[in-house]
Amino acid sequence: MTGFSFRIDATDGKARTGAINTPRGEIRTPAFMPVGTAATVKAMLPENVRATGADILLGNTYHLMLRPTAERIDRLGGLHRFMNWDRPILTDSGGFQVMSLTALRKMTEEGVRFKSHIDGSTHHLTPERSMEIQRLLGSDIVMAFDECTPFPADEATARRSMELSMRWAQRSRDAFGDRPGHALFGIQQGSVFRDQRAESAEKLQAIGFDGYAVGGLAVGEGQETMFEVLDYAPDMLPQDKPRYLMGVGKPDDIVGAVERGIDMMDCVLPSRSGRTGQAFTRHGVINIKNARHMDDPRPLDENCTCPACRNYSRGYLHHVMRAGEIISSMLMTWHNLHYYQELMQGLRDAIAQGRLQAFVADFHAQRAAGDIDPL
Amino acid sequence: MTGFSFRIDATDGKARTGAINTPRGEIRTPAFMPVGTAATVKAMLPENVRATGADILLGNTYHLMLRPTAERIDRLGGLHRFMNWDRPILTDSGGFQVMSLTALRKMTEEGVRFKSHIDGSTHHLTPERSMEIQRLLGSDIVMAFDECTPFPADEATARRSMELSMRWAQRSRDAFGDRPGHALFGIQQGSVFRDQRAESAEKLQAIGFDGYAVGGLAVGEGQETMFEVLDYAPDMLPQDKPRYLMGVGKPDDIVGAVERGIDMMDCVLPSRSGRTGQAFTRHGVINIKNARHMDDPRPLDENCTCPACRNYSRGYLHHVMRAGEIISSMLMTWHNLHYYQELMQGLRDAIAQGRLQAFVADFHAQRAAGDIDPL
Repeated sequence: MTGFSFRIDATDGKARTGAINTPRGEIRTPAFMPVGTAATVKAMLPENVRATGADILLGNTYHLMLRPTAERIDRLGGLHRFMNWDRPILTDSGGFQVMSLTALRKMTEEGVRFKSHIDGSTHHLTPERSMEIQRLLGSDIVMAFDECTPFPADEATARRSMELSMRWAQRSRDAFGDRPGHALFGIQQGSVFRDQRAESAEKLQAIGFDGYAVGGLAVGEGQETMFEVLDYAPDMLPQDKPRYLMGVGKPDDIVGAVERGIDMMDCVLPSRSGRTGQAFTRHGVINIKNARHMDDPRPLDENCTCPACRNYSRGYLHHVMRAGEIISSMLMTWHNLHYYQELMQGLRDAIAQGRLQAFVADFHAQRAAGDIDPL
Repeated sequence: MTGFSFRIDATDGKARTGAINTPRGEIRTPAFMPVGTAATVKAMLPENVRATGADILLGNTYHLMLRPTAERIDRLGGLHRFMNWDRPILTDSGGFQVMSLTALRKMTEEGVRFKSHIDGSTHHLTPERSMEIQRLLGSDIVMAFDECTPFPADEATARRSMELSMRWAQRSRDAFGDRPGHALFGIQQGSVFRDQRAESAEKLQAIGFDGYAVGGLAVGEGQETMFEVLDYAPDMLPQDKPRYLMGVGKPDDIVGAVERGIDMMDCVLPSRSGRTGQAFTRHGVINIKNARHMDDPRPLDENCTCPACRNYSRGYLHHVMRAGEIISSMLMTWHNLHYYQELMQGLRDAIAQGRLQAFVADFHAQRAAGDIDPL
């Protein structure tokens, strides 16, 4: 893989810190990837996403293939140019979103046929088509096409699903071909079954990928079950490749995942919550719509250096959120992305300095002492 | 008026260029004031509004008195601090918005009683209360409370309305008192009747204001009628005080008003149009939702230096507008405010250099040659 490499600089317990190098720049790990679903991280300009400390964005194949279409993005110079983000982009395979269209899809060995949620038009997504779309988008890190096994699944169902995903992983690898500077990641499935997770990890390594994702988590199983799987699943994946936990999560999910050896994560939570008025802070979650903030001259977090906290009172944020003003989404999203990236920097520094346990203890203590809003 | 002054640096025909000086900074004239209705210029951060070249914002007394209330803004340090804009703010008197609540208001000599469009609560707005609210907001330029005479109005109706506004102007002046560094502007009424406009101007000057607005225009009379009134109405106001045309307008309205001796204007058009997909350019209006922009790699305007034009294709702007993404409002509004401020700078430079006629001719020629969208 010319131009794509992963380096571990330090470890602390199972946690690792280092960097993924790509021709479009370095991704410091552990990394949190903001989600830019439809070629925009909602309510943010990309230069401001970058200013929060993000090294990489995630784009959604499903949304982009439907609108404006991968072919149109390709004609307009690729996703980076289209959305004005010249750093690395990871794209998912489209599989996860397609699976969630339960009423509108039909799955076969070949792939998934589904109807667009936008205009009802019919589409066919296969490993080969997913690779083609992600190539047209110009994605730096391409995800193999898989089935995200629903939760809960019995052992036989989980196995059938995992085995299908492994066959699709091979087809993804074959279709991806050799693309210097671009990486292909495989996705481990197996639900909550340790032997299936092990088998999936072996099959993926036999195929050979540039990185490995832990799939099928953050789908309703709860943090306790997720952590139980993360207690062993990442260890089954190669030590010298990046490990990506898809769709995670809340701040304490992220801390727990990093402790268990995860290098990359993505989630819509900081941006989506920002738009609905929830701010993540060191002390927990603030629901800015709560009437108690109406006359509060303090910022969301006195120690936060984001523009929302530097320049605005809770009283102002309460007002603009209640009034439905766009600036409320802009400021709250900015704050949340800033908080998430600061958390990642804190985790990276703590791992590098061998004080992750103290960092995690302090993280939980600050939240326990916090003055948070009931949601 | 300690700390508030107006200086004319150059004239060209009836047009003037100069500056209003206030303790919060200079306002270059002719000036366009973006509208920050509910303590935000919609979809913009104030530092970015400033970056477009705006020296002053307009705030709406009606909206702010209802939510979050003037008293709350006062407790939170005043409107400037509340909304993070430390430069001059002009507030309207609330009269115009209240009058438009035709079904929900009752007018007497004392003032206007009305029901809030937000929660149906009853409020009473008088010259005295309007002055109090604008003081609580911390407005730098306060507008007298008046009745914006509807259009069309017969001569007797217009006269009754104008005379009421002149009595309210005196009450506004009395209630405003002496507030060093803060200015009070009177508002000329008289509809399209030249003698009434003259009488209104005389009455206002007898009372004495720091600036004078031409009111009762841009209320549906059309550009031709508006220009007919502007051919004489501004001349009736003092040469050595700023003249403010309220609620104007489209780019060609602005050019025509400046030619006729107007120094200040405000309008929601650049921000509102931005949110609905219309971009103002030198060549006319682009409706970015039009399908012809779908695959267009060009910016809105090749010569524009705003972030929307520097960093994004029409194809991208079309996509995010169609997808209902917040970034479309952010970028389109930024572009429009940038265009408006660049137009104002062009007008100021042209007046200063005695070449306004050539500038105006070029302005119309570029639009006539333009490749614009049907709306």
